[in-house]
Amino acid sequence: MVRVQKITLAHGAGGRETSEIIESFFVRKFRIKKVSSGFGLDELEDSSTIPLPDGNYLAITVDSYTVNPIFFPGGNIGKLAATGTLNDLAVMGAKPIATMDSVVVEEGFEIKLLDEIVSSMREILEKYGVALIGGDFKVMPKGQLDKIVITMAGLGIIPKDRLISDYNIKPGDKIVITGTIGEHGAAILTAQSGIGVEDQSILSDCAPIIEAMETAFEIGGIHAAKDPTRGGLAMALNEWAKKSKLTIIVKEENIPLRENVKAYCEMLGVDPLTLASEGRALIAVSPEKAEELVDALRSKGYRDAAIIGEAKKGKEGYVLLETITGGLRVIETPVGEIVPRIC
Amino acid sequence: MVRVQKITLAHGAGGRETSEIIESFFVRKFRIKKVSSGFGLDELEDSSTIPLPDGNYLAITVDSYTVNPIFFPGGNIGKLAATGTLNDLAVMGAKPIATMDSVVVEEGFEIKLLDEIVSSMREILEKYGVALIGGDFKVMPKGQLDKIVITMAGLGIIPKDRLISDYNIKPGDKIVITGTIGEHGAAILTAQSGIGVEDQSILSDCAPIIEAMETAFEIGGIHAAKDPTRGGLAMALNEWAKKSKLTIIVKEENIPLRENVKAYCEMLGVDPLTLASEGRALIAVSPEKAEELVDALRSKGYRDAAIIGEAKKGKEGYVLLETITGGLRVIETPVGEIVPRIC
Repeated sequence: MVRVQKITLAHGAGGRETSEIIESFFVRKFRIKKVSSGFGLDELEDSSTIPLPDGNYLAITVDSYTVNPIFFPGGNIGKLAATGTLNDLAVMGAKPIATMDSVVVEEGFEIKLLDEIVSSMREILEKYGVALIGGDFKVMPKGQLDKIVITMAGLGIIPKDRLISDYNIKPGDKIVITGTIGEHGAAILTAQSGIGVEDQSILSDCAPIIEAMETAFEIGGIHAAKDPTRGGLAMALNEWAKKSKLTIIVKEENIPLRENVKAYCEMLGVDPLTLASEGRALIAVSPEKAEELVDALRSKGYRDAAIIGEAKKGKEGYVLLETITGGLRVIETPVGEIVPRIC
Repeated sequence: MVRVQKITLAHGAGGRETSEIIESFFVRKFRIKKVSSGFGLDELEDSSTIPLPDGNYLAITVDSYTVNPIFFPGGNIGKLAATGTLNDLAVMGAKPIATMDSVVVEEGFEIKLLDEIVSSMREILEKYGVALIGGDFKVMPKGQLDKIVITMAGLGIIPKDRLISDYNIKPGDKIVITGTIGEHGAAILTAQSGIGVEDQSILSDCAPIIEAMETAFEIGGIHAAKDPTRGGLAMALNEWAKKSKLTIIVKEENIPLRENVKAYCEMLGVDPLTLASEGRALIAVSPEKAEELVDALRSKGYRDAAIIGEAKKGKEGYVLLETITGGLRVIETPVGEIVPRIC
């Protein structure tokens, strides 16, 4: 499946090439390795799960954060690591309980910056009452690592009635997004390229989505949830369509997008659907609950929450966009590098 | 506590400076954050623990592997990551059940090497029936990371009667090591420096210590266990002496050391007590069980297992070495960089 001989940036971009690497080197090599009836590597959910003796599930997630620059408009690598970890748990229905971090730093890194990064991490974790229970700290000689990489593991408990899955979307389900898309990706792209939109700075949306998910579970009818990070909405919707063997149709005019992100994407010729969000949840919900969910989200401050489309029986694994002009186009799984070191 | 302005290699060496960074930036900032009555960041054990509803404990560990070279005599970074993760669980009394890995690779990395590394990882995990249930894969642009860093998280279950702790060593306890020391450190040092010992190649001891720990728990009387990795025996014994508020005395003549490692250390002026092992367990055991433990270990193939010393009431936190010539010297917590990217 992986036919090239060397790793390219695209292999880390979260799109098709990343899926190929993970499929070839991890899923196939480690197939059948799964703990009892939890979700393991085969399912490739945002977190893995292990059934607990009391009927609930333990959710566990691990991600490395390599974002460049390490301080970006709207956050830094510490805030991103804590946020991303909590979000991977939250979209599985888990209540986060504990985290561990492993920090690898380049020799010569400023202690003051490390302090700011760790403080941002702590601020997020403390706000949500999540413990940091351990970790690791390593240093690489100058020139062997660009500044800092943080890997964070998160543990949470999924109450037995809250186990959702990417495989679980039903025909007719409405697709809800909790806010505007692509801001993290656009902010990092701006910071990396030095090319911005005049007078309209773009901030990363980096923020925990725990309240949004709690609101969703109060309403009920939730079948799946996902945070559209690397590869953006395009990647998330394609994963859902493939895993649920359905067609997903979204309406361009309903997808919330800030004016500055839109202008920026038009200027650079980038598809905003492929840009990462780091503070949004994509939720598949029973049609009869969809309006109620959007209203509840809006009343909790998610003012841009919207129903953007629905899942249907049809060609399996297809994602279609109904454009503003009324046409239909296929949204492909993103390929290529998009933005390196986006998260 | 950390008075310098920039990170040095010593901060990652696993000795006193690493302890200072972890104390200043993680333990203090995140103090009081602990999950119920498990071990958290305050205790800095090899794994953290969370009590489960059935009275057992969940053990969790996370470590980043930055070893250089990535293929070394006796192993590679994939074998080391899997081994180190299993060992951190095993020394806590845990039965490993699942792992997750997060792999960060430099653009241009050879797919063939990735394949070898992941295969080595799998071989170790499969041998012990441990699942790989998820992970992450990121790529950094060429020149921003030297080849590959692997972070691995491990989960295990500690049966309620097997919860041991670095704080738990009793006066009179014998200190047992399951084999010769310092081989991983010496192998990496040889590989990095290009300076070896003629006709006596040094292999890393990198190997899981699960059988050794299972043997120990069958014998019973185990109060603490540790794998002496970064900072070697010197670091491990100092941690024990400080946490248990005891003096630990070890006899130089009883510490198993291969001739080639000894010769190499003498040639370079390196103290073998500060060199990492990656396949040895240090065990504190009730005196009446010590001989039985060593016999059992030897009969299981750990031919160099030995009682190397004991814990005593005395000056708190001190580690003393009774030298071959009969003198006593203090073994300090290692300082300085020792060997960069040792693990």
